[in-house]
Amino acid sequence: MNDQPRQTAFPVSPKNRIRRLHERGSYDRTVIYPILDAAFLCHVAYVIDGQPFCTPTIHWREGDRLYWHGSSASRMLRQLKTGTPVCLTVSHLDGLVLARSGFNHSANYRSAMCFGTAHIVEEPQEKARALKAIVDRFYPGRTAELRPDEAQELKATMVIGMEIEEASAKARAKGVGDDEADYGLAAWAGVIPVTTVIGAPEISADVPPGVAFPAHLAHFREGRKLDDVLLESQSLYERMAED
Amino acid sequence: MNDQPRQTAFPVSPKNRIRRLHERGSYDRTVIYPILDAAFLCHVAYVIDGQPFCTPTIHWREGDRLYWHGSSASRMLRQLKTGTPVCLTVSHLDGLVLARSGFNHSANYRSAMCFGTAHIVEEPQEKARALKAIVDRFYPGRTAELRPDEAQELKATMVIGMEIEEASAKARAKGVGDDEADYGLAAWAGVIPVTTVIGAPEISADVPPGVAFPAHLAHFREGRKLDDVLLESQSLYERMAED
Repeated sequence: MNDQPRQTAFPVSPKNRIRRLHERGSYDRTVIYPILDAAFLCHVAYVIDGQPFCTPTIHWREGDRLYWHGSSASRMLRQLKTGTPVCLTVSHLDGLVLARSGFNHSANYRSAMCFGTAHIVEEPQEKARALKAIVDRFYPGRTAELRPDEAQELKATMVIGMEIEEASAKARAKGVGDDEADYGLAAWAGVIPVTTVIGAPEISADVPPGVAFPAHLAHFREGRKLDDVLLESQSLYERMAED
Repeated sequence: MNDQPRQTAFPVSPKNRIRRLHERGSYDRTVIYPILDAAFLCHVAYVIDGQPFCTPTIHWREGDRLYWHGSSASRMLRQLKTGTPVCLTVSHLDGLVLARSGFNHSANYRSAMCFGTAHIVEEPQEKARALKAIVDRFYPGRTAELRPDEAQELKATMVIGMEIEEASAKARAKGVGDDEADYGLAAWAGVIPVTTVIGAPEISADVPPGVAFPAHLAHFREGRKLDDVLLESQSLYERMAED
Protein backbone atom coordinates (compact mmCIF):
# COMPACT_ATOMS: atom_id res chain seq x y z
CA MET A 1 0.00 0.00 0.00
CA ASN A 2 3.06 2.27 -0.19
CA ASP A 3 1.72 3.98 -3.30
CA GLN A 4 -1.49 5.03 -1.56
CA PRO A 5 -0.32 6.43 1.75
CA ARG A 6 -3.37 8.62 2.21
CA GLN A 7 -5.66 5.62 2.06
CA THR A 8 -4.14 3.55 4.82
CA ALA A 9 -6.01 5.21 7.69
CA PHE A 10 -9.75 5.14 8.35
CA PRO A 11 -11.38 8.50 9.15
CA VAL A 12 -11.78 9.35 12.84
CA SER A 13 -15.18 10.28 14.26
CA PRO A 14 -16.78 10.34 17.70
CA LYS A 15 -17.77 6.71 16.98
CA ASN A 16 -14.32 5.18 16.56
CA ARG A 17 -12.16 7.77 18.34
CA ILE A 18 -9.98 6.05 20.93
CA ARG A 19 -10.77 7.60 24.31
CA ARG A 20 -8.15 6.15 26.60
CA LEU A 21 -4.64 4.72 26.42
CA HIS A 22 -4.15 6.40 23.05
CA GLU A 23 -0.68 4.98 22.68
CA ARG A 24 -2.26 1.56 22.21
CA GLY A 25 -4.55 2.69 19.38
CA SER A 26 -4.51 2.97 15.60
CA TYR A 27 -6.84 3.80 12.73
CA ASP A 28 -4.55 2.33 10.11
CA ARG A 29 -5.60 -0.42 7.72
CA THR A 30 -2.11 -1.90 7.93
CA VAL A 31 -2.72 -2.47 11.65
CA ILE A 32 -6.44 -3.30 11.55
CA TYR A 33 -6.51 -5.79 8.65
CA PRO A 34 -4.05 -8.31 10.11
CA ILE A 35 -6.03 -8.34 13.37
CA LEU A 36 -9.22 -9.14 11.45
CA ASP A 37 -7.57 -11.65 9.12
CA ALA A 38 -5.86 -13.62 11.91
CA ALA A 39 -9.20 -14.54 13.52
CA PHE A 40 -11.77 -17.20 12.71
CA LEU A 41 -14.43 -15.79 15.04
CA CYS A 42 -15.71 -12.26 15.50
CA HIS A 43 -18.49 -10.76 17.61
CA VAL A 44 -21.18 -8.64 15.95
CA ALA A 45 -23.22 -6.13 17.97
CA TYR A 46 -26.58 -5.01 16.62
CA VAL A 47 -29.75 -3.54 18.05
CA ILE A 48 -33.38 -4.69 17.93
CA ASP A 49 -35.94 -2.37 19.55
CA GLY A 50 -33.27 -0.76 21.73
CA GLN A 51 -31.92 -4.12 22.95
CA PRO A 52 -28.28 -4.86 22.07
CA PHE A 53 -27.26 -8.36 20.95
CA CYS A 54 -23.70 -9.67 20.72
CA THR A 55 -23.42 -12.66 18.40
CA PRO A 56 -20.31 -14.71 17.65
CA THR A 57 -19.90 -15.78 14.03
CA ILE A 58 -17.25 -16.36 11.38
CA HIS A 59 -16.18 -13.41 9.27
CA TRP A 60 -13.90 -12.70 6.35
CA ARG A 61 -12.61 -9.60 4.58
CA GLU A 62 -12.22 -8.49 0.98
CA GLY A 63 -10.53 -5.08 0.90
CA ASP A 64 -12.63 -2.72 3.02
CA ARG A 65 -15.60 -5.07 2.92
CA LEU A 66 -16.42 -7.49 5.73
CA TYR A 67 -18.63 -10.53 5.33
CA TRP A 68 -20.11 -12.82 7.91
CA HIS A 69 -22.31 -15.83 8.02
CA GLY A 70 -25.69 -16.84 9.36
CA SER A 71 -28.71 -18.95 8.61
CA SER A 72 -31.73 -17.44 6.90
CA ALA A 73 -33.69 -18.13 10.08
CA SER A 74 -31.59 -16.19 12.51
CA ARG A 75 -32.80 -13.24 14.50
CA MET A 76 -29.99 -10.95 13.51
CA LEU A 77 -30.32 -11.56 9.81
CA ARG A 78 -34.04 -10.96 9.60
CA GLN A 79 -33.36 -7.61 11.19
CA LEU A 80 -30.54 -6.87 8.77
CA LYS A 81 -32.77 -7.16 5.68
CA THR A 82 -33.33 -3.44 5.77
CA GLY A 83 -29.70 -2.61 6.52
CA THR A 84 -28.74 -1.89 10.10
CA PRO A 85 -25.81 -0.29 11.94
CA VAL A 86 -23.45 -2.84 13.43
CA CYS A 87 -20.13 -3.00 15.19
CA LEU A 88 -17.99 -6.03 14.34
CA THR A 89 -15.16 -6.69 16.79
CA VAL A 90 -12.26 -9.13 16.69
CA SER A 91 -10.03 -9.77 19.73
CA HIS A 92 -6.95 -11.87 20.36
CA LEU A 93 -5.62 -12.58 23.85
CA ASP A 94 -1.83 -12.83 23.85
CA GLY A 95 -0.79 -12.76 27.49
CA LEU A 96 -1.68 -12.26 31.13
CA VAL A 97 0.31 -9.47 32.75
CA LEU A 98 0.91 -9.78 36.51
CA ALA A 99 2.17 -6.55 38.02
CA ARG A 100 3.26 -5.58 41.52
CA SER A 101 -0.04 -3.82 42.21
CA GLY A 102 -3.57 -4.92 41.44
CA PHE A 103 -4.10 -1.72 39.48
CA ASN A 104 -1.28 -2.44 37.03
CA HIS A 105 -2.39 -5.98 36.22
CA SER A 106 -3.18 -6.08 32.53
CA ALA A 107 -3.35 -8.24 29.42
CA ASN A 108 -1.53 -8.35 26.14
CA TYR A 109 -4.06 -8.34 23.32
CA ARG A 110 -4.94 -7.14 19.83
CA SER A 111 -8.45 -5.98 18.98
CA ALA A 112 -10.20 -4.22 16.12
CA MET A 113 -13.65 -2.61 16.09
CA CYS A 114 -15.31 -1.97 12.71
CA PHE A 115 -18.41 0.15 12.17
CA GLY A 116 -20.74 0.16 9.19
CA THR A 117 -24.20 -0.66 7.87
CA ALA A 118 -24.84 -4.34 7.32
CA HIS A 119 -26.88 -5.70 4.42
CA ILE A 120 -27.86 -9.16 3.31
CA VAL A 121 -25.88 -10.07 0.19
CA GLU A 122 -28.51 -10.87 -2.42
CA GLU A 123 -26.94 -9.89 -5.75
CA PRO A 124 -26.36 -13.34 -7.35
CA GLN A 125 -22.74 -12.80 -8.46
CA GLU A 126 -21.64 -11.30 -5.15
CA LYS A 127 -23.43 -14.05 -3.23
CA ALA A 128 -21.83 -16.81 -5.34
CA ARG A 129 -18.38 -15.28 -4.76
CA ALA A 130 -19.08 -14.94 -1.04
CA LEU A 131 -20.18 -18.58 -0.70
CA LYS A 132 -16.92 -19.65 -2.32
CA ALA A 133 -14.96 -17.31 -0.05
CA ILE A 134 -16.69 -18.61 3.08
CA VAL A 135 -14.78 -21.87 2.47
CA ASP A 136 -11.77 -20.88 0.36
CA ARG A 137 -10.75 -17.88 2.45
CA PHE A 138 -10.07 -20.28 5.35
CA TYR A 139 -9.14 -23.34 3.29
CA PRO A 140 -7.77 -21.97 -0.02
CA GLY A 141 -8.48 -24.38 -2.86
CA ARG A 142 -11.00 -26.42 -0.89
CA THR A 143 -14.13 -25.70 -2.96
CA ALA A 144 -12.43 -27.11 -6.07
CA GLU A 145 -12.37 -30.58 -4.49
CA LEU A 146 -15.95 -30.54 -3.18
CA ARG A 147 -19.23 -31.16 -4.98
CA PRO A 148 -20.95 -27.93 -6.10
CA ASP A 149 -23.41 -26.28 -3.70
CA GLU A 150 -27.03 -27.28 -4.27
CA ALA A 151 -29.78 -24.76 -4.94
CA GLN A 152 -31.44 -25.18 -1.53
CA GLU A 153 -28.06 -24.84 0.20
CA LEU A 154 -27.43 -21.51 -1.53
CA LYS A 155 -30.89 -20.40 -0.46
CA ALA A 156 -30.41 -21.50 3.16
CA THR A 157 -27.04 -19.81 3.56
CA MET A 158 -27.25 -16.15 4.33
CA VAL A 159 -24.24 -13.90 3.87
CA ILE A 160 -24.06 -10.44 5.41
CA GLY A 161 -21.85 -7.77 3.91
CA MET A 162 -20.67 -4.45 5.32
CA GLU A 163 -18.41 -1.74 3.99
CA ILE A 164 -16.13 -0.68 6.84
CA GLU A 165 -16.91 3.01 7.31
CA GLU A 166 -14.88 3.57 10.46
CA ALA A 167 -12.55 1.34 12.41
CA SER A 168 -9.96 1.36 15.14
CA ALA A 169 -7.48 -1.06 16.61
CA LYS A 170 -6.01 -1.36 20.07
CA ALA A 171 -3.13 -3.54 21.12
CA ARG A 172 -0.81 -4.12 24.06
CA ALA A 173 2.33 -6.18 23.52
CA LYS A 174 4.91 -5.62 26.23
CA GLY A 175 6.04 -6.55 29.71
CA VAL A 176 4.83 -5.36 33.09
CA GLY A 177 4.30 -1.62 33.54
CA ASP A 178 4.56 -0.89 37.25
CA ASP A 179 4.65 2.37 39.19
CA GLU A 180 8.22 3.54 39.77
CA ALA A 181 7.92 3.11 43.54
CA ASP A 182 6.73 -0.50 43.20
CA TYR A 183 9.71 -1.93 41.31
CA GLY A 184 11.55 -2.71 44.53
CA LEU A 185 8.72 -4.85 45.99
CA ALA A 186 9.48 -8.50 46.51
CA ALA A 187 6.48 -9.72 44.51
CA TRP A 188 6.69 -11.93 41.43
CA ALA A 189 5.89 -9.96 38.29
CA GLY A 190 5.85 -11.02 34.70
CA VAL A 191 3.86 -12.16 31.70
CA ILE A 192 2.16 -15.51 31.12
CA PRO A 193 1.90 -15.95 27.34
CA VAL A 194 -1.36 -17.16 25.81
CA THR A 195 -1.40 -18.83 22.41
CA THR A 196 -4.12 -20.39 20.29
CA VAL A 197 -2.77 -23.35 18.33
CA ILE A 198 -4.15 -26.01 16.00
CA GLY A 199 -3.83 -29.70 16.67
CA ALA A 200 -3.24 -32.61 14.32
CA PRO A 201 -6.10 -32.96 11.80
CA GLU A 202 -8.46 -35.79 12.86
CA ILE A 203 -9.74 -37.57 9.77
CA SER A 204 -13.35 -38.80 9.78
CA ALA A 205 -13.54 -42.58 10.19
CA ASP A 206 -15.64 -42.89 7.04
CA VAL A 207 -13.25 -41.23 4.57
CA PRO A 208 -12.35 -43.80 1.87
CA PRO A 209 -8.84 -45.28 2.14
CA GLY A 210 -6.22 -43.45 0.12
CA VAL A 211 -7.66 -39.95 0.65
CA ALA A 212 -4.82 -37.92 2.19
CA PHE A 213 -4.94 -34.54 3.94
CA PRO A 214 -5.09 -32.00 1.07
CA ALA A 215 -1.73 -30.64 -0.10
CA HIS A 216 -3.22 -27.15 -0.46
CA LEU A 217 -3.88 -27.16 3.30
CA ALA A 218 -0.30 -28.12 4.16
CA HIS A 219 0.03 -24.93 6.23
CA PHE A 220 -2.44 -26.41 8.76
CA ARG A 221 0.36 -28.09 10.68
CA GLU A 222 -0.04 -29.38 14.23
CA GLY A 223 1.22 -26.93 16.84
CA ARG A 224 1.12 -23.84 14.62
CA LYS A 225 -0.56 -20.67 15.85
CA LEU A 226 -4.09 -20.36 14.47
CA ASP A 227 -3.28 -16.68 13.79
CA ASP A 228 -0.41 -17.54 11.48
CA VAL A 229 -2.35 -20.26 9.69
CA LEU A 230 -5.30 -17.95 9.02
CA LEU A 231 -3.05 -15.09 7.84
CA GLU A 232 -1.40 -17.53 5.43
CA SER A 233 -4.82 -18.71 4.24
CA GLN A 234 -5.89 -15.11 3.63
CA SER A 235 -2.77 -14.41 1.64
CA LEU A 236 -3.14 -17.62 -0.43
CA TYR A 237 -6.81 -16.81 -1.02
CA GLU A 238 -6.05 -13.27 -2.16
CA ARG A 239 -3.46 -14.61 -4.59
CA MET A 240 -5.99 -17.15 -5.95
CA ALA A 241 -8.64 -14.45 -6.31
CA GLU A 242 -6.24 -12.29 -8.33
CA ASP A 243 -5.59 -15.07 -10.86
CA MET B 1 -26.94 -27.39 42.78
CA ASN B 2 -28.65 -30.78 43.09
CA ASP B 3 -30.87 -29.53 45.88
CA GLN B 4 -32.23 -26.66 43.78
CA PRO B 5 -33.16 -28.27 40.50
CA ARG B 6 -35.74 -25.62 39.63
CA GLN B 7 -33.14 -22.92 39.76
CA THR B 8 -30.66 -24.32 37.29
CA ALA B 9 -32.34 -22.91 34.17
CA PHE B 10 -32.74 -19.25 33.20
CA PRO B 11 -36.22 -18.21 32.01
CA VAL B 12 -36.77 -18.21 28.24
CA SER B 13 -38.05 -15.09 26.49
CA PRO B 14 -38.05 -13.78 22.92
CA LYS B 15 -34.67 -12.21 23.81
CA ASN B 16 -32.71 -15.35 24.65
CA ARG B 17 -34.81 -18.00 22.87
CA ILE B 18 -32.59 -20.08 20.59
CA ARG B 19 -33.97 -19.77 17.07
CA ARG B 20 -31.98 -22.33 15.12
CA LEU B 21 -30.08 -25.56 15.69
CA HIS B 22 -31.96 -26.02 18.96
CA GLU B 23 -30.11 -29.24 19.72
CA ARG B 24 -26.99 -27.14 20.31
CA GLY B 25 -28.65 -24.83 22.85
CA SER B 26 -29.24 -24.65 26.59
CA TYR B 27 -30.63 -22.25 29.19
CA ASP B 28 -29.08 -24.11 32.09
CA ARG B 29 -26.72 -22.49 34.56
CA THR B 30 -24.75 -25.73 34.77
CA VAL B 31 -23.95 -25.32 31.06
CA ILE B 32 -23.66 -21.53 30.91
CA TYR B 33 -21.46 -20.87 33.96
CA PRO B 34 -18.51 -23.05 32.91
CA ILE B 35 -18.48 -21.34 29.49
CA LEU B 36 -18.31 -17.93 31.20
CA ASP B 37 -15.79 -19.02 33.84
CA ALA B 38 -13.39 -20.62 31.35
CA ALA B 39 -12.79 -17.31 29.54
CA PHE B 40 -10.60 -14.34 30.32
CA LEU B 41 -12.16 -12.08 27.68
CA CYS B 42 -15.78 -11.37 26.85
CA HIS B 43 -17.47 -9.00 24.41
CA VAL B 44 -20.07 -6.54 25.67
CA ALA B 45 -22.67 -5.04 23.31
CA TYR B 46 -24.36 -1.80 24.28
CA VAL B 47 -26.14 1.02 22.47
CA ILE B 48 -25.52 4.77 22.36
CA ASP B 49 -28.03 6.83 20.37
CA GLY B 50 -29.05 3.80 18.33
CA GLN B 51 -25.45 2.88 17.47
CA PRO B 52 -24.27 -0.53 18.71
CA PHE B 53 -20.77 -0.95 20.17
CA CYS B 54 -19.01 -4.24 20.80
CA THR B 55 -16.21 -3.91 23.35
CA PRO B 56 -13.83 -6.62 24.51
CA THR B 57 -13.02 -6.62 28.21
CA ILE B 58 -12.30 -8.94 31.12
CA HIS B 59 -15.25 -10.28 33.08
CA TRP B 60 -15.88 -12.41 36.13
CA ARG B 61 -18.90 -13.99 37.78
CA GLU B 62 -20.25 -14.29 41.30
CA GLY B 63 -23.38 -16.44 41.28
CA ASP B 64 -25.83 -14.87 38.82
CA ARG B 65 -23.94 -11.60 38.85
CA LEU B 66 -21.42 -10.64 36.15
CA TYR B 67 -18.77 -7.99 36.58
CA TRP B 68 -16.49 -6.38 34.06
CA HIS B 69 -13.81 -3.80 33.97
CA GLY B 70 -13.17 -0.41 32.42
CA SER B 71 -11.59 2.94 33.04
CA SER B 72 -13.63 5.82 34.36
CA ALA B 73 -12.98 7.62 31.11
CA SER B 74 -14.38 5.08 28.71
CA ARG B 75 -17.30 5.69 26.42
CA MET B 76 -19.25 2.66 27.49
CA LEU B 77 -19.00 3.36 31.17
CA ARG B 78 -20.12 6.95 31.04
CA GLN B 79 -23.22 5.68 29.29
CA LEU B 80 -23.76 2.97 31.87
CA LYS B 81 -24.04 5.43 34.76
CA THR B 82 -27.80 5.44 34.39
CA GLY B 83 -28.03 1.67 33.86
CA THR B 84 -28.30 0.37 30.35
CA PRO B 85 -29.32 -2.90 28.66
CA VAL B 86 -26.33 -4.95 27.55
CA CYS B 87 -25.56 -8.33 26.11
CA LEU B 88 -22.35 -9.94 27.33
CA THR B 89 -21.09 -12.82 25.21
CA VAL B 90 -18.28 -15.31 25.72
CA SER B 91 -17.09 -17.64 22.95
CA HIS B 92 -14.54 -20.42 22.73
CA LEU B 93 -13.37 -21.89 19.43
CA ASP B 94 -12.60 -25.60 19.78
CA GLY B 95 -12.22 -26.90 16.25
CA LEU B 96 -12.51 -26.36 12.51
CA VAL B 97 -14.86 -28.84 10.85
CA LEU B 98 -14.14 -29.67 7.21
CA ALA B 99 -17.05 -31.49 5.57
CA ARG B 100 -17.54 -32.97 2.10
CA SER B 101 -19.68 -30.02 1.01
CA GLY B 102 -19.15 -26.32 1.55
CA PHE B 103 -22.54 -26.12 3.22
CA ASN B 104 -21.64 -28.62 5.96
CA HIS B 105 -18.38 -26.94 6.94
CA SER B 106 -18.70 -25.87 10.53
CA ALA B 107 -16.86 -25.17 13.76
CA ASN B 108 -16.78 -26.70 17.21
CA TYR B 109 -17.38 -24.00 19.77
CA ARG B 110 -18.97 -23.05 23.09
CA SER B 111 -20.68 -19.69 23.54
CA ALA B 112 -22.89 -18.02 26.11
CA MET B 113 -24.97 -14.85 25.72
CA CYS B 114 -26.12 -13.05 28.89
CA PHE B 115 -28.69 -10.27 29.03
CA GLY B 116 -29.27 -7.76 31.79
CA THR B 117 -29.06 -4.13 32.87
CA ALA B 118 -25.57 -2.93 33.63
CA HIS B 119 -24.76 -0.50 36.43
CA ILE B 120 -21.57 1.06 37.70
CA VAL B 121 -20.65 -0.53 41.03
CA GLU B 122 -20.45 2.38 43.47
CA GLU B 123 -21.47 0.93 46.83
CA PRO B 124 -18.13 0.96 48.71
CA GLN B 125 -18.25 -2.59 50.10
CA GLU B 126 -19.30 -4.14 46.79
CA LYS B 127 -16.67 -2.12 44.94
CA ALA B 128 -13.92 -3.15 47.36
CA ARG B 129 -14.89 -6.80 46.96
CA ALA B 130 -15.01 -6.44 43.18
CA LEU B 131 -11.54 -4.85 43.03
CA LYS B 132 -10.18 -7.78 44.99
CA ALA B 133 -12.02 -10.23 42.73
CA ILE B 134 -10.71 -8.57 39.56
CA VAL B 135 -7.27 -9.93 40.56
CA ASP B 136 -8.02 -12.89 42.87
CA ARG B 137 -10.66 -14.48 40.65
CA PHE B 138 -7.96 -15.02 38.01
CA TYR B 139 -4.97 -15.35 40.35
CA PRO B 140 -6.42 -16.65 43.64
CA GLY B 141 -4.38 -15.39 46.59
CA ARG B 142 -2.55 -12.76 44.57
CA THR B 143 -3.87 -9.61 46.30
CA ALA B 144 -2.51 -10.87 49.65
CA GLU B 145 1.06 -10.55 48.35
CA LEU B 146 0.63 -7.12 46.73
CA ARG B 147 0.63 -3.67 48.27
CA PRO B 148 -2.89 -2.35 49.00
CA ASP B 149 -4.64 -0.32 46.29
CA GLU B 150 -4.21 3.42 46.62
CA ALA B 151 -7.14 5.81 46.85
CA GLN B 152 -6.67 7.27 43.37
CA GLU B 153 -6.37 3.76 41.91
CA LEU B 154 -9.72 2.77 43.43
CA LYS B 155 -11.22 5.94 42.00
CA ALA B 156 -9.77 5.38 38.53
CA THR B 157 -10.93 1.76 38.29
CA MET B 158 -14.51 1.40 37.24
CA VAL B 159 -16.33 -1.86 37.79
CA ILE B 160 -19.60 -2.65 36.04
CA GLY B 161 -22.06 -5.12 37.51
CA MET B 162 -25.04 -6.86 35.98
CA GLU B 163 -27.52 -9.40 37.30
CA ILE B 164 -28.01 -12.00 34.57
CA GLU B 165 -31.72 -11.80 33.77
CA GLU B 166 -31.71 -14.12 30.78
CA ALA B 167 -29.03 -16.23 29.18
CA SER B 168 -28.46 -18.99 26.69
CA ALA B 169 -25.60 -21.20 25.62
CA LYS B 170 -24.80 -22.86 22.32
CA ALA B 171 -22.16 -25.46 21.70
CA ARG B 172 -21.03 -27.88 19.01
CA ALA B 173 -18.61 -30.64 19.95
CA LYS B 174 -18.58 -33.46 17.43
CA GLY B 175 -17.21 -34.71 14.15
CA VAL B 176 -18.27 -33.92 10.61
CA GLY B 177 -21.98 -33.97 9.84
CA ASP B 178 -22.36 -34.61 6.12
CA ASP B 179 -25.39 -35.31 3.94
CA GLU B 180 -26.01 -39.06 3.60
CA ALA B 181 -25.32 -38.96 -0.15
CA ASP B 182 -21.94 -37.25 0.36
CA TYR B 183 -20.29 -39.84 2.60
CA GLY B 184 -19.01 -41.79 -0.40
CA LEU B 185 -17.16 -38.80 -1.92
CA ALA B 186 -13.37 -39.07 -2.11
CA ALA B 187 -12.76 -35.77 -0.28
CA TRP B 188 -10.81 -35.43 2.95
CA ALA B 189 -13.14 -34.69 5.86
CA GLY B 190 -12.41 -34.23 9.52
CA VAL B 191 -11.81 -31.89 12.40
CA ILE B 192 -8.79 -29.68 13.08
CA PRO B 193 -8.71 -29.08 16.86
CA VAL B 194 -8.09 -25.57 18.17
CA THR B 195 -6.74 -25.04 21.68
CA THR B 196 -5.74 -21.97 23.67
CA VAL B 197 -2.80 -22.73 25.94
CA ILE B 198 -0.58 -20.82 28.33
CA GLY B 199 3.17 -20.65 27.97
CA ALA B 200 5.91 -20.65 30.57
CA PRO B 201 5.66 -17.58 32.85
CA GLU B 202 8.20 -14.93 31.82
CA ILE B 203 9.53 -13.19 34.91
CA SER B 204 10.25 -9.44 34.69
CA ALA B 205 13.99 -8.74 34.53
CA ASP B 206 13.74 -6.37 37.52
CA VAL B 207 12.22 -8.80 40.06
CA PRO B 208 14.63 -9.11 43.00
CA PRO B 209 16.62 -12.37 43.14
CA GLY B 210 14.99 -15.10 45.22
CA VAL B 211 11.40 -14.21 44.33
CA ALA B 212 9.91 -17.41 42.87
CA PHE B 213 6.71 -17.93 40.88
CA PRO B 214 3.94 -17.93 43.53
CA ALA B 215 2.96 -21.36 44.88
CA HIS B 216 -0.71 -20.37 44.84
CA LEU B 217 -0.49 -20.00 41.06
CA ALA B 218 1.04 -23.44 40.57
CA HIS B 219 -1.88 -24.39 38.32
CA PHE B 220 -0.56 -21.91 35.70
CA ARG B 221 1.64 -24.58 34.15
CA GLU B 222 3.17 -24.26 30.69
CA GLY B 223 1.15 -26.06 28.04
CA ARG B 224 -2.11 -26.23 30.00
CA LYS B 225 -5.36 -25.13 28.41
CA LEU B 226 -6.27 -21.59 29.45
CA ASP B 227 -9.84 -22.86 29.92
CA ASP B 228 -8.79 -25.40 32.51
CA VAL B 229 -6.52 -22.96 34.33
CA LEU B 230 -9.27 -20.34 34.58
CA LEU B 231 -11.88 -22.88 35.73
CA GLU B 232 -9.45 -23.97 38.43
CA SER B 233 -8.86 -20.33 39.42
CA GLN B 234 -12.60 -19.77 39.67
CA SER B 235 -13.04 -22.80 41.87
CA LEU B 236 -10.10 -21.81 44.13
CA TYR B 237 -11.45 -18.27 44.35
CA GLU B 238 -14.94 -19.46 45.29
CA ARG B 239 -13.46 -21.64 48.03
CA MET B 240 -11.41 -18.66 49.33
CA ALA B 241 -14.50 -16.42 49.28
CA GLU B 242 -16.46 -18.96 51.34
CA ASP B 243 -13.83 -19.03 54.10
